[in-house]
Amino acid sequence: MRIAFVGAGNLATNLALALQGKGHELTCIYSRTEESARQLAQQIGCPYSTSLTDINACEADIVIISIKDSALQEVASQLNTKALVVHTAGSMTIDTLPQERRGVLYPMQTFSKQKRVCFSEIPIFIEAAKAEDLLLLQELSQSISQRVVEMTSQQRQYLHVAAVFACNFANHCYRLSANILEQHGIPFDVMLPLIDETTAKVHQLSPHDAQTGPAVRWDENVMKRHLGLLCSEQQQTIYKLMSESIHNDQLRPQENQSHRL
Amino acid sequence: MRIAFVGAGNLATNLALALQGKGHELTCIYSRTEESARQLAQQIGCPYSTSLTDINACEADIVIISIKDSALQEVASQLNTKALVVHTAGSMTIDTLPQERRGVLYPMQTFSKQKRVCFSEIPIFIEAAKAEDLLLLQELSQSISQRVVEMTSQQRQYLHVAAVFACNFANHCYRLSANILEQHGIPFDVMLPLIDETTAKVHQLSPHDAQTGPAVRWDENVMKRHLGLLCSEQQQTIYKLMSESIHNDQLRPQENQSHRL
Repeated sequence: MRIAFVGAGNLATNLALALQGKGHELTCIYSRTEESARQLAQQIGCPYSTSLTDINACEADIVIISIKDSALQEVASQLNTKALVVHTAGSMTIDTLPQERRGVLYPMQTFSKQKRVCFSEIPIFIEAAKAEDLLLLQELSQSISQRVVEMTSQQRQYLHVAAVFACNFANHCYRLSANILEQHGIPFDVMLPLIDETTAKVHQLSPHDAQTGPAVRWDENVMKRHLGLLCSEQQQTIYKLMSESIHNDQLRPQENQSHRL
Repeated sequence: MRIAFVGAGNLATNLALALQGKGHELTCIYSRTEESARQLAQQIGCPYSTSLTDINACEADIVIISIKDSALQEVASQLNTKALVVHTAGSMTIDTLPQERRGVLYPMQTFSKQKRVCFSEIPIFIEAAKAEDLLLLQELSQSISQRVVEMTSQQRQYLHVAAVFACNFANHCYRLSANILEQHGIPFDVMLPLIDETTAKVHQLSPHDAQTGPAVRWDENVMKRHLGLLCSEQQQTIYKLMSESIHNDQLRPQENQSHRL
């Protein structure tokens, strides 16, 4: 397919390269910042522009908008094209786009410039206003991922907040752990086997069943000592709140069970 | 070496099997609960007992106590042996043990009955009151792990609280994520590729540099919408607190930098 990109950030870069790798034709890359547009266009070997008029003029079957959520509505309103217009934002509804032919292609992953990701394992959640456009998005998505799921905007917003917990907040737990280690001269990489195993476990057990540590056992001596070792009030507050939440969760097996049905 | 075990829980089971696998002789397994002692002893093929007198009487070079922290001091006080006595508790000091020949062997990992772990990658932190016993512990630990580190009780307590953040709290983030998905009929395994990548990233980038999401960008629209989707007050409080902590952390790159030096 012929694809134009509005945006040249982390997600756009990873997605554009993955699509090109599967033989799709990138027809134009737009970015507000010329340097970003040029960088990605050079990697792809396609034209770039800092004017949306060029996106409207270029030949494309699909225009993928991958920019920050707050700019989405305004930028989309300037697109005047017969192509299918889709955005990649997990937390924005399909109706943020004014186009009749509108859709969403949300690859649920954490993208950083410094690390390329392999798309084939990334779940892609798609939605389209028209049935034929859904088929188009399905075909495009399946060309790069083994796991393509249709999902409404309504459901996708819960997926997005769940992803914030599983990714951003889990990573912040690593960060807080690294902070403590740094303050005491212990290298962070001693923690990696534990982090790897914690992740490996939830492939086999539910996170509820996989939980260990002083909060599950409600070992008040250990928790009290831990609180005394933490040097910032924010760390202490997080320690208390997470421990209480773990403990509450363990006390409610019946309720948790029912969620699984 | 000849090794006796006091305790037959998750850690004791995993450690005893690993040691036997490397040719060490298990001479006796003690547990308060006969059923636990028998189960582990049968797997190993060694005697078991519910009386500490049998541990005192058995031939052993090292007695490993692996029981809950709160019982450690009292149980250790009943041991009367010429062997080196060590415990496996990350958060307890070496001096919890009254023996002259005392030590610590702390394998930093999350152990569940339902999942066997491979010891060779697990960092083991050791400490001993006597130099010759430290060598003994080193030899024993190196027989099952590639990563054996000497560490004082003082430092180990920081390691332990850091492990609570990196393992228990990160896993609880998975649990909260699973809760949200369950409530909306989305299977948890769609989250696994994201969880795997979040973990893979901190092998290459620091957790600070790896962070993504609405809290880093301080995207108040998205965060406000997310808060509206969460159905419990505790989830909302955790969402706010973690987001603020991520944001504060991003505002302090200089301070973080200095910790790394």
